[in-house]
Amino acid sequence: MCWDAAERIRDGVRETPVEPSPALSERTGARVHLKLENYQRTGSFKLRGALNALLSLDEPTRARGVVAASSGNHGAAVACAAASAACEALIFVPEGSAPSKLEAVRTLGAEVRVVGEDCLFAEQAARLHATEHGMTYLSPYNDERVVAGQGTIGVELERQLPHVDAVCTSMGGGGLISGIGGYLKSLRPNTEVLAFSPAHSCVMHASLEAGEILDLPSEPTLSDGTAGGVEADSITFELCRQIVDESFLVSEEEIAAAMRTVLRQHHMLIEGAAGVAVAGFLKASAETDRWCERDVVIVLCGANVDPEVLKKVL
Amino acid sequence: MCWDAAERIRDGVRETPVEPSPALSERTGARVHLKLENYQRTGSFKLRGALNALLSLDEPTRARGVVAASSGNHGAAVACAAASAACEALIFVPEGSAPSKLEAVRTLGAEVRVVGEDCLFAEQAARLHATEHGMTYLSPYNDERVVAGQGTIGVELERQLPHVDAVCTSMGGGGLISGIGGYLKSLRPNTEVLAFSPAHSCVMHASLEAGEILDLPSEPTLSDGTAGGVEADSITFELCRQIVDESFLVSEEEIAAAMRTVLRQHHMLIEGAAGVAVAGFLKASAETDRWCERDVVIVLCGANVDPEVLKKVL
Repeated sequence: MCWDAAERIRDGVRETPVEPSPALSERTGARVHLKLENYQRTGSFKLRGALNALLSLDEPTRARGVVAASSGNHGAAVACAAASAACEALIFVPEGSAPSKLEAVRTLGAEVRVVGEDCLFAEQAARLHATEHGMTYLSPYNDERVVAGQGTIGVELERQLPHVDAVCTSMGGGGLISGIGGYLKSLRPNTEVLAFSPAHSCVMHASLEAGEILDLPSEPTLSDGTAGGVEADSITFELCRQIVDESFLVSEEEIAAAMRTVLRQHHMLIEGAAGVAVAGFLKASAETDRWCERDVVIVLCGANVDPEVLKKVL
Repeated sequence: MCWDAAERIRDGVRETPVEPSPALSERTGARVHLKLENYQRTGSFKLRGALNALLSLDEPTRARGVVAASSGNHGAAVACAAASAACEALIFVPEGSAPSKLEAVRTLGAEVRVVGEDCLFAEQAARLHATEHGMTYLSPYNDERVVAGQGTIGVELERQLPHVDAVCTSMGGGGLISGIGGYLKSLRPNTEVLAFSPAHSCVMHASLEAGEILDLPSEPTLSDGTAGGVEADSITFELCRQIVDESFLVSEEEIAAAMRTVLRQHHMLIEGAAGVAVAGFLKASAETDRWCERDVVIVLCGANVDPEVLKKVL
């Protein structure tokens, strides 16, 4: 893995703050620090990976444009990255995607194409279009440059905190945790990397347990940012096997409670995927004193919540 | 006015980002930029003024501690400022203040004292306590050092944007608008300074119209951050008279709609006082083309919304 992404993407992303959480520290016994990727441009860490992947392309390749399939954070990230690199972006989304999300992607300057009934179809259409038109398909996680981009959160943490004993992140496709965990472990192999997933959609968690990538269904979850399957050939499976020390599941009610806690205690809006990490560490730390007085970072990976969903959570 | 606060408070506050708002630009015809004080530590710009006032005290005075009266942003700001300057803070609040807010202030390390039925009584008690104990009472706005602290938003804007034609902020006691507007006009006197207040509580607006500080009642408003009276001797009255080019009122429904717009378009949580500025500029720009193609900054002054209030807004 090559960790030179930080310099490459520096002008396009925000160096997000880390802040101590007295409230979560008191509840868990750990010294809890929050990494505020909910303050990242586009409201999600995904910009880091998308921008690194895009800026890693050679000039003629980039000039032919990029394609992605996502009505969520990855779509907005690719649109934003393409705008800052003055390159064309085409985002495929399934029918039934929230109009406000598509509008957000369009406002960022990308073209949106609505195809088929589900995410898998949109992805296949996106890949096909890329091949046929000489454009580059950008995966949300199955791409070393994307993983390295997410790893720049680790680069910042290293600068921002004198010490990190454990880092907590939600796990979907595994790009975020592979990036941060991989970078931090490359410096200090005994940094603990803790993964958290919603029980309703935990394909990577189950795959790690099974020792192979599984094809499993998902139920709806507040953590839409991590939901869905894992590509059969994903590089993140092997990375997660090497990097993740322990993997935990959380319920929908636990996610909602964590979102409310962060809103009440820190006056910050976080999305379900960030709530997963908060909920998970609250739960994990209640069963052991292993993190007592240790420096634990919880990554608040994003802030993009549908207003209707937020209303229900409150 | 002395504009050296930026250097003094640099280590204690965040330099908050400015981001373009394609959505608000499209609706207004202006080039709208958002100054994200909703990302400030404590979730509000008030930290800037409180910290500047506190750090302007000489060492022995600061060592005797500071007193404030506020169950809201100013209270949290004074608590946070005192913690970072390792000085004692005592915050007076009226009975009936939201327990979560008091908890937040306590978590920041300040002592909270609950007294009397309303804000005025809490303020009188705080002033009396300060006098009796040789401590310093910190006003939320009637203090040149507080105004100068809020002015550091202007210092950052000056660095962050090549040009500012107009700046829009909500107006309560007038500290924020006097600070930013005063600084920007000290550099370029023709920068327009636009003030926005909730019609339900617009004492400074009415005072400016009347040419004297009025003692007026307030109705409840979503913009609790700007609500309430103006001290009879407030230095901000004269500053606002000099600095504010135009002052507008907005309704509660307009504030709520603006909060929803920012949540939907920018995935950011803003408090009512920030919604006032957004709502106000949407309204003001609908009646004239004076800001067409001009660079307009809207200050999103804070993110502190009570979850119950947020639920109603959604």
